[in-house]
Amino acid sequence: MPKPSLKDAILDAGLRVMFRAGYHGSSVRDVVQEAGAPQGSFTNHFRSKEAFASEVLERYFSHVQGLVALALDDTSLTPRARLRRYLDIITGRLAADDWMRGCLIGDLSLEASGNSELLRAQLDTIFRAWRTPFAACIAEAQQAGEIAADFAPDELAEFLLASWQGAMLRMKVQRSPAALERFKTIAFNTVFKEPS
Amino acid sequence: MPKPSLKDAILDAGLRVMFRAGYHGSSVRDVVQEAGAPQGSFTNHFRSKEAFASEVLERYFSHVQGLVALALDDTSLTPRARLRRYLDIITGRLAADDWMRGCLIGDLSLEASGNSELLRAQLDTIFRAWRTPFAACIAEAQQAGEIAADFAPDELAEFLLASWQGAMLRMKVQRSPAALERFKTIAFNTVFKEPS
Repeated sequence: MPKPSLKDAILDAGLRVMFRAGYHGSSVRDVVQEAGAPQGSFTNHFRSKEAFASEVLERYFSHVQGLVALALDDTSLTPRARLRRYLDIITGRLAADDWMRGCLIGDLSLEASGNSELLRAQLDTIFRAWRTPFAACIAEAQQAGEIAADFAPDELAEFLLASWQGAMLRMKVQRSPAALERFKTIAFNTVFKEPS
Repeated sequence: MPKPSLKDAILDAGLRVMFRAGYHGSSVRDVVQEAGAPQGSFTNHFRSKEAFASEVLERYFSHVQGLVALALDDTSLTPRARLRRYLDIITGRLAADDWMRGCLIGDLSLEASGNSELLRAQLDTIFRAWRTPFAACIAEAQQAGEIAADFAPDELAEFLLASWQGAMLRMKVQRSPAALERFKTIAFNTVFKEPS
């Protein structure tokens, strides 16, 4: 059996450190210390902090895609209910972290996209990939007459994911789920309401 | 006549540096260099980087409040049109910065609220103060029958400002105004639409 990779341990530590201190606030020393790894092990696996952050982000997005599938592939729910289910799953995950953790994709979008073209381009690719299953689910909900077909599924999916980032941003400042619950209540009674 | 204050110059430089590099990525040395000021002048005026960031944030919010007043005090427009006007004014300002600058309040909300209780509490106060004139304008629009009265003005104001932060986040990643225009189109045809 292969032994657990030091690279994996460093990536996991990087996620924890970046959630705490952001991209600029995370030094390589902080990360290897958190991983309990020798400093040299970082440079064995990553050519730069930017390349490292890119791998952390990729792993994080894989995790998020698992949560997306958990909600949007649940065919026991109607398409509209699946959209809501995703937001409820994320709310539950955030609750476990005392409303301070938020989303690394949102954090890096504001902090790193201005000065790392590598990360900015990657984040844009992530947002487009993230949107795809939501747009498909929204199209299904529109075909079923569960939500209005006034806007294209891609547009509504982008609106949903971006606005949800805004709700998480407000949550972090308020240290309370109020903004998440407000977003769900208002969005599912307006933009995503069932046509009467 | 008093000479232009070195403190003001350092605060202005701080805003530029923090927009570029974020809170953690901005060193005191970067800031005094940008201001063309001696290092000692920083410690004459600010007891810590955190206290300095707090003053930069306060100045920035004063500037934002000026833009809020420009839109929401314009009684030549209907209350609903004033809300839209604010978003158009911000879109215009962001256009001048190549879609990379965004909003310092949003940036610090994600980057600093997790590890500075001073900044987090200040940001929460800012969001509540920011909401107040929007809630008043929304209440006026509801009384005039311009938008539905299904939700309390405070709730809609919070929703608007938080979701707009999400749109700016997406804008920064995409380097395009698409997310801002999408938000305005969808929000003003759903949440803030004129009742038929």
